[in-house]
Parts: sequence; C-alpha cells; structure tokens
Amino acid sequence: MTAAEKLAALRAGMAAQNLSAFIVPMADEYQNEYVPAAARRVDFLTGFTGSAGLAVVLQDKAAFFTDSRYTLQAQQQVPGALYVQFDTAEKLPRDWLAAELPHGARLGYDPWLHSVQSIELLRTTVSNAELVPVTQNPLDAIWTDRPVPPAAPVALHGLEFAGEPTEAKRAKIAAALAKQHSDAVVLTDPASIAWLLNVRGGDVPHTPLPLSFALLHVDATVDWFILPRKCDDTVRNALGAAVRCHAPEGFLPQLRQLGARQAKVQIDPAGCASAIADCLMTAGAQLVKADDPCGLPRACKNMTEREGARTAHRRDGAALAQFFAWLALQPPGTVTEQQAETQLEQARTRQNLYCGPSFDTIAGSGPHGAIVHYRATPETNRTLQAGELFLLDSGGQYRDGTTDVTRTVAIGTPTAAMCAHYTLVVKGHIALAGIRFPVGMTGADLDVLARQFLWAAGLDYGHGTGHGVGSYLSVHEGPQGIARRSRTALQPGMILSNEPGYYLPEHYGIRFENLMLVTEPTVPEGGNIPMLGFEVLTLAPLDRALLAPDLLTKPERDWIDTYHARVRATLSEQLDAAAHSWLIAATAPLPTPST
Amino acid sequence: MTAAEKLAALRAGMAAQNLSAFIVPMADEYQNEYVPAAARRVDFLTGFTGSAGLAVVLQDKAAFFTDSRYTLQAQQQVPGALYVQFDTAEKLPRDWLAAELPHGARLGYDPWLHSVQSIELLRTTVSNAELVPVTQNPLDAIWTDRPVPPAAPVALHGLEFAGEPTEAKRAKIAAALAKQHSDAVVLTDPASIAWLLNVRGGDVPHTPLPLSFALLHVDATVDWFILPRKCDDTVRNALGAAVRCHAPEGFLPQLRQLGARQAKVQIDPAGCASAIADCLMTAGAQLVKADDPCGLPRACKNMTEREGARTAHRRDGAALAQFFAWLALQPPGTVTEQQAETQLEQARTRQNLYCGPSFDTIAGSGPHGAIVHYRATPETNRTLQAGELFLLDSGGQYRDGTTDVTRTVAIGTPTAAMCAHYTLVVKGHIALAGIRFPVGMTGADLDVLARQFLWAAGLDYGHGTGHGVGSYLSVHEGPQGIARRSRTALQPGMILSNEPGYYLPEHYGIRFENLMLVTEPTVPEGGNIPMLGFEVLTLAPLDRALLAPDLLTKPERDWIDTYHARVRATLSEQLDAAAHSWLIAATAPLPTPST
Repeated sequence: MTAAEKLAALRAGMAAQNLSAFIVPMADEYQNEYVPAAARRVDFLTGFTGSAGLAVVLQDKAAFFTDSRYTLQAQQQVPGALYVQFDTAEKLPRDWLAAELPHGARLGYDPWLHSVQSIELLRTTVSNAELVPVTQNPLDAIWTDRPVPPAAPVALHGLEFAGEPTEAKRAKIAAALAKQHSDAVVLTDPASIAWLLNVRGGDVPHTPLPLSFALLHVDATVDWFILPRKCDDTVRNALGAAVRCHAPEGFLPQLRQLGARQAKVQIDPAGCASAIADCLMTAGAQLVKADDPCGLPRACKNMTEREGARTAHRRDGAALAQFFAWLALQPPGTVTEQQAETQLEQARTRQNLYCGPSFDTIAGSGPHGAIVHYRATPETNRTLQAGELFLLDSGGQYRDGTTDVTRTVAIGTPTAAMCAHYTLVVKGHIALAGIRFPVGMTGADLDVLARQFLWAAGLDYGHGTGHGVGSYLSVHEGPQGIARRSRTALQPGMILSNEPGYYLPEHYGIRFENLMLVTEPTVPEGGNIPMLGFEVLTLAPLDRALLAPDLLTKPERDWIDTYHARVRATLSEQLDAAAHSWLIAATAPLPTPST
Repeated sequence: MTAAEKLAALRAGMAAQNLSAFIVPMADEYQNEYVPAAARRVDFLTGFTGSAGLAVVLQDKAAFFTDSRYTLQAQQQVPGALYVQFDTAEKLPRDWLAAELPHGARLGYDPWLHSVQSIELLRTTVSNAELVPVTQNPLDAIWTDRPVPPAAPVALHGLEFAGEPTEAKRAKIAAALAKQHSDAVVLTDPASIAWLLNVRGGDVPHTPLPLSFALLHVDATVDWFILPRKCDDTVRNALGAAVRCHAPEGFLPQLRQLGARQAKVQIDPAGCASAIADCLMTAGAQLVKADDPCGLPRACKNMTEREGARTAHRRDGAALAQFFAWLALQPPGTVTEQQAETQLEQARTRQNLYCGPSFDTIAGSGPHGAIVHYRATPETNRTLQAGELFLLDSGGQYRDGTTDVTRTVAIGTPTAAMCAHYTLVVKGHIALAGIRFPVGMTGADLDVLARQFLWAAGLDYGHGTGHGVGSYLSVHEGPQGIARRSRTALQPGMILSNEPGYYLPEHYGIRFENLMLVTEPTVPEGGNIPMLGFEVLTLAPLDRALLAPDLLTKPERDWIDTYHARVRATLSEQLDAAAHSWLIAATAPLPTPST
C-alpha cells in the first residue's frame, strides 16, 4: 500500500465510525520513551522513521508534527502532498485541531495511546469538538502486516545489583499508599515495574524493560499483567506468592473489580493511558491523581546501586580509553562515523556485564556535530577530516549500571574559535560539577551555572543541561533533571548528566557530558549547613588540544588536573600498552598559562 | 483601656454579630506595604508595634502571628496571657483556624482588609467554618481614639522625572484592556495610581504615595476616588478632563453602576480588597482576574527614569562618602548606632532633591548586625566598638529616584573569619552583578549565583537576594525580584537590589547591597544571542580592610578595582576635602595577592 492508499483506507475507517478527525501518536499503551515496532503506527502510516512524530488526519486534510530534531527528516520521508508539516515549537497539534475542526466535530483518539493528562489538555484546547475514544483503532484495522508485539524473556535483577529486595520496596510503596488512604496504585511505567519487582526484560531497544501493567495493593501484594511466555518458573518462584502473574487480558476485568468495590485507586495522569482511567471511573472507583510513587525511590539509588554505577563507569571508561587511543592513531580522513561507532561498541562489548548501548550512538563529525540528535546512517556517513571536531555521545547498559558520556575531540589541529567554544562549555560543566547546595534545591536552581560563561560570550545551547539516569534502566529517567523546568528537589543517590554544549550550525558541535551522583549531605569545614554535592561518575579525559588555557582560572585548571589524575589512576590497570601510553599523555597536568 | 479590656470589648462586639472568630490583620484597604496609623488595628488591640503581625480572636482564646523578624518583639509587647503566639514559618493563621474552629463556626473578617486571594485561601483551608464578611468592623467600633486617616497633599510628578505623560500611560494600559475585551480595571495599588497619573503624595511613611482608588476605563479615562482636600486645583487642572476626581464615597456606587451594565471589570486578586470584588459581583459585573496591568510598565523604567536613578545615586553616593569619611575619623567606642543614623541622614539632607529615607535605616553594630531587620531604638542603641562589624542598610527618596544601599565596615581591626565571610558575600554579589543572560530569564534563574560561594563554605542567608525598586516610589516594588520564587522575566529598565549577606547570630552580620538596572539587550562580541545584563547604580566603596585577597580571583579583583575607579571618578567633585582624601584611599587599587 502507498502512503496515499493507507490514508484513504484510514479515512474510510474513520467515516465508518463517523469520525471527523483521528489522531495517530507515536506512543504505545505504556507511554514509554522507546516504542516497539508493533506500536510504530506513525511510521506505518506516513513513512516517518524518527522517534518523535504525530499525525492528525481529517477527511479533507492531514498534518504531521515533529520537533526541530526531525523537521528535515520529516520533509524527506513524509509526503508533503498528503500532509502539511509543522514544528511543534511553532504549532502544537491541539492548537491546529482547535483552529481546523468545525463546531461539533467528532475527534477520535485511541485512549490506550494518550495519557490522561494529554487528553485533558486536548479537551481544554479543542473545546468546540466532541472527543471520541475509539474502541476499534481504525488504523490498526488497515495495518495488516503489523509486527508481533515483543515478548523478550524476563530476567531477575539480582540483589547484588538491585541492593534491596522487592519485598522491602513493595512494603515501602504500600506504606505510602496507606498514608494517602489509597487501596491500590496502577503502575503503567515499565521502568517502575522493573524497579519494584527487581526484574529486567528486553521488549524495547536500549532499555532492559519488560512491557507490562501492574497493580500494587495497599497490602504490598502485586497483580502483574504480562504475557505468560515472558516469565518462566524461575522468575515466578523468585517473586513468590505476593506477586500474582496474570495474562494481559486479566487487566481490565481486575480494574473493574476495583471499581465495583469503590476502591480508591491511584494513577499518574502524566503516564497512565486514558483508557485505564476511563475504565476505573466507569466501574465506580475513586480515582486519585498523584505522581508515580515509584518515581522518587527509583531515582534515589541505594548504596549497592551507587557502587554499581561506579564500577560500571570504571569499565565504561576503560572502553572509552581503548577507543580514543585507537582513534588518536588513525590519520585524519581514514575513519568514518559509522566505523568509529562500531569500534567503540566493540571496545564496550569486551567489558564485563555489558549488555548493549543505552541509546543510539551520536557520532557526529564536522557539521554533523551541530545536529543535536544526529544518527549516522549509510546515507549520511562521512569521514572524520583534519581540522574538524568529532562529537561522540554514547552510553552502555551494564548489569550494574547505565552510562551516558559525550566527548568532543579535535581531528588534526583545531581553530582558536573551536578551542574558545570548547573551553566555555567545559567551564560551565566544571561550575555545575563543583557546586555544593542545600537540601531542597532543584535542577532549575542550578541550570545557570553551566550556561553563565556561554551567556557572557553571547552564546547558549537549546537543550537542558542534564537528565536523570536509571540503574540498568532508562538512560532518560525522571523526575530529576537539570533544566529550567526541573522542579524536583535533588536528593542523595540521584544520578544526573551534566552536558552543556555549543552548536555552530553547518560547522561543528561541542558537548561535554559526565554523569554525576548526588552525594549525601555533609557540613563543609567552617560552615553550619549540610550541603549536597556531585560525585563525578564518568571517567574519560578531556581533549587537552581543545582547551584554551588563558580562558581557564586556576581553580578550573586544578579541577581538570585532579579529574585527569583520577581518570589515570582508575583506568591504567585495565588498559593495553598502547591505550595506557595514550592515557598518560591525555591526562598529563595542564601547562601553567603564559599570563 | 488595657489589652484585656480591649479584647473583652471586641469579643462583646463579635457576640453581637454572632461571630465565633474575627481576624485582625495589619492591613489597610489598599493592601499596601506601609500602613498609616489609622489602620494599625493590630497595634491598638495587642500593643505590637512591628510592621507585620496578625491577631485572631475567638471567644475563649486568641492568637498572635508574626514572622521571625518580630517573634522576640512580639513576646515583649503582646501579652502572653491573652494571646498564644506563633511564627508564621511554623504555623499559618488559616491552618490554626482550621484546627481550632468547630464545624459551622462563623469566622468574621473585614472584607476591606483582606485581598481576594487571601480570602480564597482562607475559604479553602478553613472549610468547616462559614466565612462572614462584616459590614461593621467590631474592632473599629471600640477604637474610639483612632487616628484620623492621612490626607497629605498630592503633588504632580513632573515630566522631567516621570519621562512619560499620564495620557500616554493611560492610553497604553487602556489598549491592553481593549485587547482582553475588558471595560475597566480597578486600580487598588497606590503605587500603580501614582505611576499612572504622575502624582506623588505623603500618606504613608517612606513612600510618597497618596492613598486612593481608581478606575481606568477602556477609553483611557480615569475615575479617581480620593479625599478632595488632598488635591488642589493645580493637580486637577494638570490631570485634565479625562481624569475625573471624586470623593471616596463615590467609589462603591460607581462599581455598582459598572455591575448594572454587566461590564467586564479587571481586578488583581493579590492586591484587590475582597469587598471590591464582592461589590462588583453582587452588582452583576463580569470579574476578570489578572495581574495589575500597571505592574510591569511601572517596573520597566523609561529613559528619563533610568537617568534619574543614575543622578540620584550620584548624590546618594556623595552623602555616603561624606558619612563614611566622618565615621572613619571617629575613634572606636565613641559613636552610637543612632548617632550614625542621624549623621547619615544629615549628609543626605544636604543633597539636592532629597525627600527623606526610603525605609527605616538599619544601623546594626556587632550582634545587632545579625538581626536582619534591626532598628536602633533608645533602648537597644549601642556604641560601635573596636573589633566589631557595623552593618548600615539605608536608602533615600529623591525626586528623581529611590536608593537602597547596604555597606558593612570594620570598626578597628577585623578577625580573619570576618574577612573570609565578607569576601564570600562580595564574591556572590560580583557573580550576580556581572552575569549576562538571555531574554526570558527570571530572578529565580539567577539567585544561585549570589549564593554559590557561601554554599561551598556550608553557609547561606535566609532572605532573598534582591527586590525590585521603584522610581521615587516604593523601595520594595514588584513584580521583579531575585529569589527562588521570582518568576517574572527580567526586562530592560527594571531596578533590582543585589544584597547577599551572612549572619552569625549574636556576633555579627554582613550584607553588601547595590541597586542594579537591567540593561538593554546587546550581542556580546563573537556571539549571536542578545544578552541582558546589569548596570550598577549604587556608588560607595567596599571596605578594603574586610577583603581577604587570597579568596578573590583575578576577575573579581578587577571588578572591584574597576568599580572603585568609577566611584572615585564620579563622586570626587562632590566631596569636601576630608571626604575626598578618604575616598582616594578607600578606592585605591587592591594589592596583588601574595600567592
């Protein structure tokens, strides 16, 4: 079927349900960051292969929405004759719908593919239309070659990695439910379920998640709705009688039972599919809207998880050193982006407990470095040339921890402007890494530290400064973050990235990223207030060739020298002779500046 | 009448209106920061003379609430046998009422003395009681020796100071009303009315405000409700026919007329007395809740006001230099706090266009410096002793601008700890003063800059970093500010204080405060984003004896030297010989540190 035929078939299906419009989001019923092939409806309908996109289909027009990362790609993949295209920074789908739909129009949506919150926003904005949750998705009806939903086996996440038995976690969350007089909470975030039950899976790329739903009751027992073939007896036995496994078909009936006894049931409106809330309310349950109760406990890593993060980063640092030592030996013009990516992946694969990349590697040479979410493909693949910068953002999933690191290196001799920009980025990174702060501060309070030197030069970067990172879980984990919108207080054990950057479109991109662990509060000498701080987890040298020494203060040079000494001391023993020699040079103390 | 007799009389009055409880706030009908004597009901009832306090009276108990600035003073002034006392940081009046009032209790309040917002909060929190707006305030009935309301004459604020005719201001705000399809806005903030009409008055201490209400209509005309004897013909004629003056008694009838024609009337729920909103709604008006439309235009000073601020600060700087030169000549142990305050006031009085202090001077020597809102009285007055710090926070109202400046100086030789603490405070001040930032950033985004060095030492200060300042108006002006809660984007022309501090209770206090003007956006060399910044207005030397040179970076030393050179160059010509000699020494370049 061509894109035009698919659109026509969808419109026929919509007409059969008397729908004026239908929304096709890039989402599954778990509202998860990564979506399995079976849920890539946007891809099937429009041909768009990026990770963020949404189509809206009316009988006489259709629109496609994506963000600035993908507007170019969308123009190439999505037929412009069929879809008008928008950047969501300029026009939101709901605003377009509000303007396009006539009064009384019937706007269809699949309630499994939209969160409670997003439907509330839609209802408020598109106030002149009737919102119609469909029970038969008209797109699924025409998607005859739809891939089978994933069913990767579930594995236990052992206590040596998890650090806390599921019983203790369940008791803790159940106690929180009891305090709020809730009878149960619907867990829809696969990462929360994986954390709570100490299990991992493989249903989506990059993140070891089993897709499933769960109900945690105030008695600390769990009803777990998961494809039976994913869980073998070892898993079932280990979870014990307090975790009752059910086929997914049992989910809605059990929600209805909760409703029938007018139970007080908690959902997180930001992540819970609208269909779940509708089912509970129709059945008579009292709905309590609250943040996912597993969110904060999952974000605050326990001592075992913290130690796991440290050891995972030591191995990841060794892989990075092996890679950069290799790269330093290759003459400019001889290595492509994809070769670099492969080489790095091979270095990681040799590390203990490595399971795979934690996201698609961004290996951007020259102008590609300025594309924040660049992905090298056979079509775009280019060679690292002398006089260019090479931006490499990658990460690994290890059983004991998740890594995410960006380094930018000069290929050949960099220009003075490259060095100045790199140094401004590094200065911001150091200011944030070194901050001490009282209990209660949020990422929003700290964001300016990483930007101040770029701002002074009339520059900035268009993304947040840092995101949360899971423990052998999602590389993008909430609720913690470092950005103007990050209003969650930072707490000991949270892992965050620190990744300021600078992008000169069509020329080069610079980003410098370490992961950091929020430390326990301690009172600095001479002070009287307990202060939190950051412990740097990532171990990989800066590119000394890119540092403009005159732009660095003495404390900043000291920070770099101390960090380099630690990188050298920690990684030396894990490296082969060539990489070791490279590391000694790469981590040598900085020269004292001329001034 | 004793406090007990007053309380008994109030309770009898409450009983006559069948009230279970009555709230007595420190507020007038304008919700203004400074309250005239005629509205100091809390003072009359309880004997409390501070600026922030609230009494709640039940038939069998009563409570008094104030904040940490005044808890000690309240314990001394408010009879503990009659009132239980609370710090509002620990217990809010509404929470206490919610716990104390039985179901169905009748909670009385004077709707002229509470904002719409505060009554909404009260209604939500004290949900088991019936809120009763009284038409006869039972406290006023027993306050037989109540002072006459103030009636200071209104003066025109000439175009040479205001920079924009009232006609233009009214047209601008009226256009904003038209855009929101509002028919009128009720202006209840005396500072907004003073700004809009280019008038000043003298009804409250420290701020040149006439107390009044105004209605601005969408046709840009104004109905102004003000005691007739405050406005002479010069004022009336200057305002012209588009500003109709009425006696205050005409206010409610005109609100009812607006209601009768179902007009759409805007109020600011944070500042509008509940009685006004009640009157409008009862009469049939459509109420639109929005921020005071004069708030932002007033905060963004025009070019005349900016130049006025600069010249006012030059004169204020000369007065400060005369004062500190005098102080430097007095041997330790010979000057009291009150003498210092008087000496400074005399130096200001000699300046052109000076009208009086912009707030009660804080002259805190030794341990008094640690009391953030200290006020020297005959009882507390102490002598500045050798080895102590002296914190002096003061400001002036000049016809062309309002000033607010804090300097901390050593009397005799300071300790190393004093120098370290002073230098940490100054480093934070410099980091904030020197920041460049993109359009859209708020004070909340920048607050950390002033705290980072104290945090690193395990220290902090318990107040915001900066507040807005008016133009010959209130020294505390919204909506701009620099604090975690300041969510208003900073805009060119706003004036803000930058006043980090450090307080060691019972020993000393340090604060360093300059006023700063937000500059127009410019693109720094080599950059591509327009950046705002701060122009420092205040001109007074730091205390070089208190700087720990080893704690300062080279850029910080350069900042101080550049600032001192500017202070010297600007003030020299205005000073007598002795002050000039002092200034030369006080602003000499810092020595290069030993390291």
